[in-house]
Amino acid sequence: MTVSLTVLYHQPEDAAAFDRYYADTHAPLAAKLPGLQSYTYGTADPGPDGSTPQYHVVAVLTWASPEEMQAALRSDAGRATTRDMANFAQAGATTLIGRHQQVV
Amino acid sequence: MTVSLTVLYHQPEDAAAFDRYYADTHAPLAAKLPGLQSYTYGTADPGPDGSTPQYHVVAVLTWASPEEMQAALRSDAGRATTRDMANFAQAGATTLIGRHQQVV
Repeated sequence: MTVSLTVLYHQPEDAAAFDRYYADTHAPLAAKLPGLQSYTYGTADPGPDGSTPQYHVVAVLTWASPEEMQAALRSDAGRATTRDMANFAQAGATTLIGRHQQVV
Repeated sequence: MTVSLTVLYHQPEDAAAFDRYYADTHAPLAAKLPGLQSYTYGTADPGPDGSTPQYHVVAVLTWASPEEMQAALRSDAGRATTRDMANFAQAGATTLIGRHQQVV
């Protein structure tokens, strides 16, 4: 059973600084998580009416099993990745864990 | 530039009925959207403390360009997929559109 960790990043005060740090530092760190099957993220644009989207970035990381995900999060790389969130995600993040399906 | 449409489904009243309808009817319908590059979704489990997650399902659909995404949403399949949300997503959904990156 593929499992996913979805991280919904709240709107940062400085989106450009967030984007830079996320792409240059956080994503390369998270990419080292053991057993990672896939890792993608989307950066939300303003709505058609110029409104601020509910979240700034949605990241989805997948593993082959809940056990592999838990082991990855408890590993040195997992702890470093979690700790790094204090460096750019001061606005907070909402995390969801669950079953993952690929349709297309 | 790959773009993604992320749909955060709010908690339904009847999660089992939602899951059945989503897997059997909505996902096959959305899978027909023209130009779709990938389509995955995660179904959130309760938190470690038994708490209800903020969202029930997070679906991420990607296209090769904003133009292809807009064309897909305006197509017959796009209209049918949007219309179908009234059949199972009565609790609402939050939609985000933006640039998409594959890290792993």
